Parts: sequence; structure tokens; C-alpha cells
Amino acid sequence: MAGRGLYIGRFQPFHLGHLHALKWILDREEEVIIAIGSAQYSHSPYNPFTLGERVEMIWRVLKDEELTDRCIIVGVPDTNGIHSLWTSLLKSFLPTFTRAYTNDPLSALLLRESGVEVKGIPFFKREIYEATRIRRLIAEGGAWEELVHPRVAEYIKEIGGVERLRKLFKLS
Amino acid sequence: MAGRGLYIGRFQPFHLGHLHALKWILDREEEVIIAIGSAQYSHSPYNPFTLGERVEMIWRVLKDEELTDRCIIVGVPDTNGIHSLWTSLLKSFLPTFTRAYTNDPLSALLLRESGVEVKGIPFFKREIYEATRIRRLIAEGGAWEELVHPRVAEYIKEIGGVERLRKLFKLS
Amino acid sequence: MAGRGLYIGRFQPFHLGHLHALKWILDREEEVIIAIGSAQYSHSPYNPFTLGERVEMIWRVLKDEELTDRCIIVGVPDTNGIHSLWTSLLKSFLPTFTRAYTNDPLSALLLRESGVEVKGIPFFKREIYEATRIRRLIAEGGAWEELVHPRVAEYIKEIGGVERLRKLFKLS
Amino acid sequence: MAGRGLYIGRFQPFHLGHLHALKWILDREEEVIIAIGSAQYSHSPYNPFTLGERVEMIWRVLKDEELTDRCIIVGVPDTNGIHSLWTSLLKSFLPTFTRAYTNDPLSALLLRESGVEVKGIPFFKREIYEATRIRRLIAEGGAWEELVHPRVAEYIKEIGGVERLRKLFKLS
Amino acid sequence: MAGRGLYIGRFQPFHLGHLHALKWILDREEEVIIAIGSAQYSHSPYNPFTLGERVEMIWRVLKDEELTDRCIIVGVPDTNGIHSLWTSLLKSFLPTFTRAYTNDPLSALLLRESGVEVKGIPFFKREIYEATRIRRLIAEGGAWEELVHPRVAEYIKEIGGVERLRKLFKLS
Amino acid sequence: MAGRGLYIGRFQPFHLGHLHALKWILDREEEVIIAIGSAQYSHSPYNPFTLGERVEMIWRVLKDEELTDRCIIVGVPDTNGIHSLWTSLLKSFLPTFTRAYTNDPLSALLLRESGVEVKGIPFFKREIYEATRIRRLIAEGGAWEELVHPRVAEYIKEIGGVERLRKLFKLS
Repeated sequence: MAGRGLYIGRFQPFHLGHLHALKWILDREEEVIIAIGSAQYSHSPYNPFTLGERVEMIWRVLKDEELTDRCIIVGVPDTNGIHSLWTSLLKSFLPTFTRAYTNDPLSALLLRESGVEVKGIPFFKREIYEATRIRRLIAEGGAWEELVHPRVAEYIKEIGGVERLRKLFKLS
Repeated sequence: MAGRGLYIGRFQPFHLGHLHALKWILDREEEVIIAIGSAQYSHSPYNPFTLGERVEMIWRVLKDEELTDRCIIVGVPDTNGIHSLWTSLLKSFLPTFTRAYTNDPLSALLLRESGVEVKGIPFFKREIYEATRIRRLIAEGGAWEELVHPRVAEYIKEIGGVERLRKLFKLS
Repeated sequence: MAGRGLYIGRFQPFHLGHLHALKWILDREEEVIIAIGSAQYSHSPYNPFTLGERVEMIWRVLKDEELTDRCIIVGVPDTNGIHSLWTSLLKSFLPTFTRAYTNDPLSALLLRESGVEVKGIPFFKREIYEATRIRRLIAEGGAWEELVHPRVAEYIKEIGGVERLRKLFKLS
Repeated sequence: MAGRGLYIGRFQPFHLGHLHALKWILDREEEVIIAIGSAQYSHSPYNPFTLGERVEMIWRVLKDEELTDRCIIVGVPDTNGIHSLWTSLLKSFLPTFTRAYTNDPLSALLLRESGVEVKGIPFFKREIYEATRIRRLIAEGGAWEELVHPRVAEYIKEIGGVERLRKLFKLS
Repeated sequence: MAGRGLYIGRFQPFHLGHLHALKWILDREEEVIIAIGSAQYSHSPYNPFTLGERVEMIWRVLKDEELTDRCIIVGVPDTNGIHSLWTSLLKSFLPTFTRAYTNDPLSALLLRESGVEVKGIPFFKREIYEATRIRRLIAEGGAWEELVHPRVAEYIKEIGGVERLRKLFKLS
Repeated sequence: MAGRGLYIGRFQPFHLGHLHALKWILDREEEVIIAIGSAQYSHSPYNPFTLGERVEMIWRVLKDEELTDRCIIVGVPDTNGIHSLWTSLLKSFLPTFTRAYTNDPLSALLLRESGVEVKGIPFFKREIYEATRIRRLIAEGGAWEELVHPRVAEYIKEIGGVERLRKLFKLS
């Protein structure tokens, strides 16, 4: 099944569950496109980090794991609720791919309606590695650092991400 | 001057002049962000290729030249004439960078007004390696293949790019 | 009171309550514009069908009921929360009309502020013929087919609409 | 070749050349979707009439020619230069169709790339029935009325269209 | 600390708490820019008044209080959830300012990240002078008039604002 | 004819011809709304200054001329070519006005179609006080300072406007 897989997520933030999924796909495909969705959003409890910050997190992990020659990172804006345009935008923003990997039901539905082969990804300890939970832990001062790659933990602290999340959660 | 350089262009298409510039920057910086501007446009004589197609071209060259571990490709939409938002969008879409390299006067003006250090890039045989000229050569059946990397020439032919440019030029 | 009535709705989907209302307006006006609102949205539990799919549903019913020479179908995008532009957009997208028929309080408020005569429509067994309820019935495998015109039931099944709604409701 | 044809145009204004083309398609297809492009634009020399005004023109002609039961009128906004989204938007705004009829090279290119069968339409006295020429004739007080259907001529005068075009042409 | 302060709010509607805050800032700064946020929204329970109506309210109060030579009113659209562009848009829409005054945590976070000095404003009887509460009182026929400046009360009644709020609240 | 006049322009930059026109309107109306159009654009040869910079120019002149209690400055974005929405946007962004003053034929056409009374403004030495000419003079180092109010000349130099125009003109 060697080809180029598409791995879609928002990666808010990129955590060890994501890395596990990425490696699982890399066992099956020669290369992987990491598509960072909702590219334009940031500074909300649901989407705290900018696209650039998410690219940086993933890049640092790829370097550390020596995966830069097999992974292409691409940001994809969402279409502001106009779902019928999403696959079209996605395809025009991405290099060619063989099949998509996602557990998100709407993405899967839209991709399948447009003729793309879609596969699920086995969850890796989902009760622990889950972005919503990790954002809350960061905001509340919980034990989040072990849930992300050391390079990501470092970077989040470097840009004042903990403070930002704490403030954003007070808002919502 | 080791840091992370930002190299901005539309890369319609990515040609040997671009590759030359990229290597020149890589001599000066540890890493380079290749920012592909006007990400959302395609299928016009000025912007024939989609973002995804431009990412693919550059990726194939980076693989061939063994540069994937030093170059981060990112697409950046333009702001539809609202220039005062462009640097802000750029910064939010890009990982951190130390300085920018561009010969485009508007990009340079906007980046400098927002506090970014901007450097020019020595042109490499500009009368030959120039994207406007290369697009015309492709459309008119001229000798364009030697002006791009072999991986790019291959890819443009693979996706029917010659035919597309020929049709787009009949339009304009 | 012969003129051209404007009948506004989202028609997600077009059901027998809508058809009843349409006929009630056709008793009062020579012609009716059927304005399909929120034209750009689809693939959500609240707006499952594309504009094209809604046009198709209504068109098949109009053909069956021999009403194509008295009804003009027009899609109207919503203005993304910028309500002060909505009547303006509506008027520029629609042919001339004499008065509007709607039970939606915001539409009525905006139309009246812009000088349009607005009339309510008597509800027809609203507890039964109500789009929110019908969408849920489709998603949950309930008895929805008798609540829409046979042409609409046929069409929804033809395009895999039952399956789509089932998946969209799992999402939300 | 009986099916549903798609006839795409801007119809600024709908003239006898358009009507001729429509009838030619109706000889080949059971039904025709008349897709009015650049739906959102008006009040410029290139796009003088609103979508609603163009729908009205076409509707009056269809009534007069007793074609309302074979023609579906739909407005389609353009995607503001983002051509890779256009076919996707088009398909989501339109009911199902079998094949497209257009002489516009960009529309043909985009539709073919997305897998749609595209056919050309024989021009009908193009040196006479051409929208650019007709707009200029209206603006300059030339003999335009015989170039459109009597219902269209009537309507353009009814809404002050001659005066509008005269003013718009002074602008440009 | 004489300079030009920036006072940011939505002013839905401009009430005596706002006027109190404005005067408090005017004690500290030579001039104040009154930035009216979410400029494009109106006709919802949360944002009932148009930008123009809010400018009118504030202008009438400034005239009455003889403050027109120290206050510059500017409307600023919001960026539709794309928070990383907001300070950039704000700065391009506003004349120069020395520091910002706001109690809104997201505005403060974004302004501080972009290098602006931000100060809080002491609340003035917040349990009474609070816009959410005042909108509800207007809608429900409560005692709202004494909570706004007489010029504002007059104006809201003049434009049918009470009736509008009553209808909008029935909606939500 | 005492009321509130609307004076529309782009004011790129605000020059003595504009000030002359403003005073001419102030002779006829109690108050004037100065509507700054194309609010979102800047950094192009046609629209060099941001909205904020134009507000600042006009504000400094109004202060100097002691006109702040009779003039309301409001920025109005343009509608990106969707002219049918422009008057609607304008009305929602502006406080009430009695009549409009403009020499721009498209603005006049659109305002009149929406029922607004429009008056022309006598040109004041147009061959000298014309914004296009003044922008060119600034860019080319000509004698522009005497064509604007001293406060405006000062401010343009203060923000590096001469340098910006010089660079922008090299672009185009």
C-alpha cells in the first residue's frame, strides 16, 4: 500500500497521540502530507495557536525524529461553514495524495463524497492523548508536558503559550 | 549570520533562478522558510498553478537536492489588496524567522514598516530565469524545460501543465 | 391582491408544509418567487442539502404539480451575520416582487425596516410538518417519507441523503 | 442525447444570440439549466445589471416563449479570482446536469479538469449579437432594441437601464 | 501621562457607564479615540444597533458634553474569528495612540502581544451600568432610560430601537 | 437648507481642494459627515494611506480650523466590486444625513437609485488641487506641500509618507 497518505488535523497542539498516528501512517505509506486545518484561526480556547506556531511545533518534532524527508506540512484554511467547497480547497492546497487518514466524521463524509479513499486511524490511549483535554490541562496548570513531545513542550513555554491559554480559558 | 531566513515568492513555476536563490540563502542561514504567496490563486496566465502543485514542484526538487531537512514550505494567501493586513497574516502563517529575503518592493516596504529586517537577493541571469518569460515559453511551445529543474519539468508535463498554460494564454 | 409574492425559506428539505404554504400564496398572487436562503451552506445538521439539491427538490415538485410557469426559484446567500446588508443583497438577487410572505421574525423585521410589505403565512399542521423534526426523522430512520412530496422522497434517497443525515447527526 | 444541459453565461443583457443558443441546446436536451454567472456584480460597464434584473429578463422571455417548464434559472457568484473553487461552487449551486455548453475557454478548461463533458455552441451572427457591443449601443443611444427580445427591451427601459448604462460608460 | 488614549468597546448601546469611563480616561489623556468594535454587525440581540446608530448616539452625547474637540470616533469591523489579524486591522483603521484602555481580556491579550500598553478601567457601578442588562431592560420594557444619557434615550426611541429590541429578543 | 450633509471621498491625501469643498458644504449645512471611502485599502499608488492615517490628517485640520464640533469623520470600506451593496453598507455605517455631496458619477448613481438626494460640489481649481496629481508630486519630489494644509504636510512627512509614495510609484 505504498503511496502518499494525507493526515488531517488541527493539531491544537500537536501531541504524542498525533505523533503515534503519524508513525502508524508512515508504516503504511512512503510519504505523508500533514494538513493543518482551520489554518486562519488562533487565540481562542478551541484554537489557541496560530498556523505558524503549529508548523513550528511539528517541524521541531520531525527534525528530532528525522522524518523531514517523508513529511510535507501544509496549512489549509477552513471555508467558514461552506462545507461544499472544503474538499475543493483542500485538493487545490495540497500536493497529490493516494488516500486520506482521518477519524473526523465530517471530513470523512466530504472526502468520500468527492471520491477520495478514506481510512480511520486506531486511537492511541485516547482518554489521555486528546487535544481538548491537553488544552485544559495547560490552562489549568495540570500535568500536560508529558503528553507532548519535549520539543513541543519547550516551544509552547518559549512563546508564552501557557499564559495565553490561561487567559483564553478565563474568557470562554 | 546563522538563523532562519524567509524566502518569499509566488513560484509560478519554481525555476532554476529560484533554486539558485534558495541555495544562496542556505549558504547564509541554517534553515529557510519557503513562503509561497498568492496561495489561493491558480488557472490564470499570471498564476497558472495551484498552491498544491507549487508545493509538489518544490518538494520534488528539495528531495532530489537533499534539502528537505533545511527547508520549510508554507503557503500564504494574499489579502485581496488589503496590504495593511499582509505582514500580520504572513507572521501568523509562518514559523519564526530571523530575516526576510525578497526583491519585491511592496513586500520589502510592508515587511520593513512592520519591523522585519529585509535583504535583497542577487539576481541569477534574470534575463533568462524569469517566471513571466518561462510561463510564456511554456504556453507558446518554446524551450522552457532547461529553465526548470528536471523534476519540475517532469511534473508540469505529468499534470498537463503545458496544455493548461496554452489555453490560459489564449484567454488573456 | 394579484401581484408577485416572495416566499422565503431555507427548505432543508422542501416538505409538504412548504408546498401547502406555496399554494396558499399562489391563491393570492399571480406568481411567486421561491427564495432559497442560506444558499452557500450544506453538510451540517441544520443545513444538510446544497442549494443545487434544494433547487432540484423544488423543481421536481413544481413540474409534478404543473406550477413551473408561476414560480421562479432563486438562491440567496446569507450575509454571514451582517444583517444590515441582507435586504439589499436579497433585492439585488431577486426579480421584482410586490410583497413578501414569511413567518421568520428577523426576516420580517429587516424587510419592514427597508420598506417592504410583509405578510405571515398560516401554519399547516406545524407540529407535523416542520423541517427540524423532519431532518431528525430522516437521520434516525423515522417515518419521514410521508411528510414530503413523493418526488422529494425519491430524490433524497437517490443522492444518499438519508445516509448523509445519519452521519451529520452523529457529528453534532 | 436527451438529458439536462447546462448553459453558462453572464447575460449582460440576455440577447437574441443567447436565446438562439438556448433553443439550439433545447433541441438536444430535455431540460436546460441557465446558470447566470458573476451573480454578485452589477452597476459596472462590464456587468451593468443585477442578478435579479437578469433573472427577470430571462423569465419574461421564457414565459413569452412558453419554455418555463424546460428551463431552470440559477445564479452563481464568481469566486473572486480563486478559480480552483469555481467548479465546486457551481456544482453545489446547481441541480444535476448531464453536460455543459459554453464557448468560454476558462469555464471549459475548469469544467473539463473536474470531469464534466463540455460542448461548444455554434455562434449565431456573433458580429451582431454580442453583449459587449450591445452594452455599448445602449450606452451610446444606438440601435440596440432589435438585438434583444421585445420583453427584454421593454424591461430594460422600464428600470431605467438605458440611463444607467449611459452613466456607467461615462465612468469608465 | 498626557497623550492619546484608545477606548475600545461595542457600545450596544452607549450608556452612562461608558460615559463615566470616557471621562475617567479624559482625565488622564489629552484626547481619546473611541473605537466602536464589531462595526459590521447589527440587528441581533447581542449587537442590536448599526455602526451608524452607535456613532450617532456617541456624537450627540459628545456635543451635549462639549467633548467633540477631544474625542475621535472610529468604527472597526471585527475579523470574523481570525484574531491574529485584529490588532493589525485596528492599527490600520485608527489614528496614532499612546496607550489602550480596555477591560476585555481577549482585546488586552492581543494588544499586549502586539506591543501596545494596555490599562484597565475602574468599573462604575457595573451591576447597574452593563450593556447586556440594559439591552434586556429595553426589550422587556424595564427602566432603562435613566441608565443612558438623555440624548441616547431620545435617539433610541426616535429610531424605533425599543420595538427592534423587543422583536430581536423574541427571536433568540 | 440646514441639515446634515454627507461628503464622500477617499482623501488620498486630504488636500486644500477637499478643505475648500468641506467649507462650501458647511456654509449650506449645520453639520457634515466626512465619509472616508475605500477604508480598507492602503500601500498602493492609488490608495497610499491607511484609514487611520487619513483620519489623522483630517482630524488635525479640523482641530486647527476649529471645526471638530460640526464634522463627524467615518470610514467606509468598499464592497469589493459588489456595487449593489454599497449604499446599504454606507447607510449602516453612517449616522443620519439629509443629503449627499459628491462629484463621483458611480456614487451619485447608486445613491440616487436608493432614494438619496445628491448634489454636486463646485470644483476649486481642479487642475491644481487634484489627488492623483498630488500623489505623483509627492512621489516625484515635486512641489506638493503648498497643496495641502500645513498640518497634513507635517503629518505626511512625520510618518515617512514621502518615502512610501516614492517606493509605491516605483512599483506600478
